[in-house]
Amino acid sequence: MDCKEALTAAHDDLEKAIDYLRKKGLASAAKRAHRDARDGTVGTYVHPGAKLGVLIEVNCETDFVARTEQFQDLVKSLAMQVAAANPSYVAREDVPPAVLDRERDIYRQQLADQKKPPQILEKIIEGKLGKFFEEMCLLDQAYIRDSSGKTRVKDLVAQASAQTGEKIAVRRFVRFQLGE
Amino acid sequence: MDCKEALTAAHDDLEKAIDYLRKKGLASAAKRAHRDARDGTVGTYVHPGAKLGVLIEVNCETDFVARTEQFQDLVKSLAMQVAAANPSYVAREDVPPAVLDRERDIYRQQLADQKKPPQILEKIIEGKLGKFFEEMCLLDQAYIRDSSGKTRVKDLVAQASAQTGEKIAVRRFVRFQLGE
Repeated sequence: MDCKEALTAAHDDLEKAIDYLRKKGLASAAKRAHRDARDGTVGTYVHPGAKLGVLIEVNCETDFVARTEQFQDLVKSLAMQVAAANPSYVAREDVPPAVLDRERDIYRQQLADQKKPPQILEKIIEGKLGKFFEEMCLLDQAYIRDSSGKTRVKDLVAQASAQTGEKIAVRRFVRFQLGE
Repeated sequence: MDCKEALTAAHDDLEKAIDYLRKKGLASAAKRAHRDARDGTVGTYVHPGAKLGVLIEVNCETDFVARTEQFQDLVKSLAMQVAAANPSYVAREDVPPAVLDRERDIYRQQLADQKKPPQILEKIIEGKLGKFFEEMCLLDQAYIRDSSGKTRVKDLVAQASAQTGEKIAVRRFVRFQLGE
């Protein structure tokens, strides 16, 4: 929203818009906006037997990093994760509000008989919602190849980002299972 | 619709429903309904450079045929076709009515000054719609690897169907181009 406002104020001149954001003390945000992850890789994974496949787009900042082994390994790991763990969304921010409301309603009904104080109830509901994110959102899922279950997929992405020195973002994925 | 009706009349007994359809002289339709393409392959194509990828599901009737070279070649060719020719739909039946209406409106406006008789106008509009299908619908597209431009993608599918003796259907595809 800040960026949109800045671009409007600067009549769509990007440099001026950055100045505007700087003046507003949002220099770091401006910098990150500038350092958008616009390059990257489109990767695939097909499970043996070819009845299940995944297509994924992972972004980084430069084609140079996109071609590194670290980045390619990350893309392959993420595609396998999607195949195995079948997430519905990339990040929790992508879950539509209506879906969250429905989940909250279900939890509330499940807890209706327990006569707990409202603030305790809300805590339990938020806990259940956390589990829901861990099941449905790729970045919140436990990484399948870490048997300890402690590594989240977002940790894997953060690791690759630290190794390559670039912003890395999972943009989208799709998973086809035969006949589903 | 006939099948639904038949199933209702036969209280969801499939054999009885087929009898019902036979009596109604729809034996061949019943046979095809029975021979649903429920097996198949999920295939991928990634363009060199890994900035463009395709995921596709193609159905046939048995795993045996799904594993044949002919079928696998078809899946690969279709995935490459989607990558190169960027269709929006599998078949013309998949184009939403609203999109067709909008196209027809545009054509009508393009032709508004030409003062042609209405039936001629309608013919020109249907011709333009044919071109639209050839551009947007995978099965109606000219097959990219036939330089004569005479082979449509649906001919390719029909060919593979004749070779393998099974019903073959393109179920769905998705195409990711980096940053689009």
